[in-house]
Amino acid sequence: MTALPSGLLGVLDATSDRAVFRQIADQLREAIGKGHFAEGAKLPSESELVGHYGVSRMTVRNALSVLQGEGLVHSEHGKGVFVRPRPPVRRLASDRFARHHRDQGKSAFTVEAEAAGSHSQVDNLQVREERPSADVSARLGSPLRVLVRHRRYLLDGRPVEFATSYLPLDIAKGTPIAAPNPGPGGIYARLEELGHRLERFEEEVRARMPTPPEAKTLRLAPGVPVIRLVRTAYDTKGRAVEVCDTVMAADAYVLAYELPAQ
Amino acid sequence: MTALPSGLLGVLDATSDRAVFRQIADQLREAIGKGHFAEGAKLPSESELVGHYGVSRMTVRNALSVLQGEGLVHSEHGKGVFVRPRPPVRRLASDRFARHHRDQGKSAFTVEAEAAGSHSQVDNLQVREERPSADVSARLGSPLRVLVRHRRYLLDGRPVEFATSYLPLDIAKGTPIAAPNPGPGGIYARLEELGHRLERFEEEVRARMPTPPEAKTLRLAPGVPVIRLVRTAYDTKGRAVEVCDTVMAADAYVLAYELPAQ
Repeated sequence: MTALPSGLLGVLDATSDRAVFRQIADQLREAIGKGHFAEGAKLPSESELVGHYGVSRMTVRNALSVLQGEGLVHSEHGKGVFVRPRPPVRRLASDRFARHHRDQGKSAFTVEAEAAGSHSQVDNLQVREERPSADVSARLGSPLRVLVRHRRYLLDGRPVEFATSYLPLDIAKGTPIAAPNPGPGGIYARLEELGHRLERFEEEVRARMPTPPEAKTLRLAPGVPVIRLVRTAYDTKGRAVEVCDTVMAADAYVLAYELPAQ
Repeated sequence: MTALPSGLLGVLDATSDRAVFRQIADQLREAIGKGHFAEGAKLPSESELVGHYGVSRMTVRNALSVLQGEGLVHSEHGKGVFVRPRPPVRRLASDRFARHHRDQGKSAFTVEAEAAGSHSQVDNLQVREERPSADVSARLGSPLRVLVRHRRYLLDGRPVEFATSYLPLDIAKGTPIAAPNPGPGGIYARLEELGHRLERFEEEVRARMPTPPEAKTLRLAPGVPVIRLVRTAYDTKGRAVEVCDTVMAADAYVLAYELPAQ
């Protein structure tokens, strides 16, 4: 039985009413939090933990599965359990849709990516027409049909979000908005050229665990939630001209906003 | 062996490379999504699922644990597995800190709760002084010491968030802000009376799985993430006068924001 470096992990509290596997998970979590196991580092093996704590292998496995469920560690078959590296977090600024960014001919995603020194890509692009869902219809003022633009965004090769935009067909049909590449500045620049000068955006933010297809599309580790962000763009006449429904890897983002005090 | 109502759940695809327990989880998830099992309804028992699919009890248990991890169902020992009721979601409006709400002598939490027809409570109130963490210090302009106000919020008896506010001690010491009950309109009203007229708030939004103490404090079901919201309040002189660090049950909230297009 291999001994762990002394002091790295503590002993169990036999008088506690906290289950033994939870106590072990607590100690490993604390050691990770303190940096005793760095990002990407291997945790002690199951055998080492069995030896250290004097518990069954099943108890050790339960402890490790708690940490996996929290997204703190991931297991590699036959190799062991590792501290999950934290991906770089992108801070989305509260002025990310301001005109001075669009005037540079760049999309908000590209602007943010470049500000963070990252390489951005878009894939899985799909453009189609359809009848809107009840929710999209209510947000867009009940258009009969909508143009749908779907795409996935990658940063430095890692998928971080996918988004579906819905625009009333009477605005978008036969315009560059319906083209696979809508051109510099993206669909917001095209909307303004078509006379829909943008005034404001509303965003609604929620968080939940991903569905299995979402976890696959974003290559999410276990225990990583998604942020769901629904944005509605309004023109200066008060018309809702686009709804964008976005699912983001929660470990890749921090969203920044400003709120008025007046 | 009890037979399930015909058509409620499908058959397994033996040619699929998707693991059998995942196929079963997919079918149960779809049936829940379609409302075939309503909120609070009991899922078929393990024995019924074993009989229906012709698989081992372990496979059925793995399928159910997938759904539990997603927060869709919860198990009650000895009773079965139930579709988790979705709590009512509170929409936090983008003008929730506007002065006209504070002028009514109510806190933002109370205003939002009443708008939703809910009963609000605050408990676990703690007020103390301490040296700020590096993060709080950086946000508040490096005060030597801060006043700390901690509290938990409940809606209709359910804990939905807990929050810790940090204020520079030179502003807050010896004022009603340091009292357990700071009076009508809360600490923002008191800050303005002390000459710190508020101009704007910055909020940073993240989502992650809860730590075990957070899950306990908010009584979170498995598979429910938390939203972490850090708000900084600025006065009209541009000074940061408060940082509020909030952890919210993600299944209880949708956060609404406005973004400028100009």
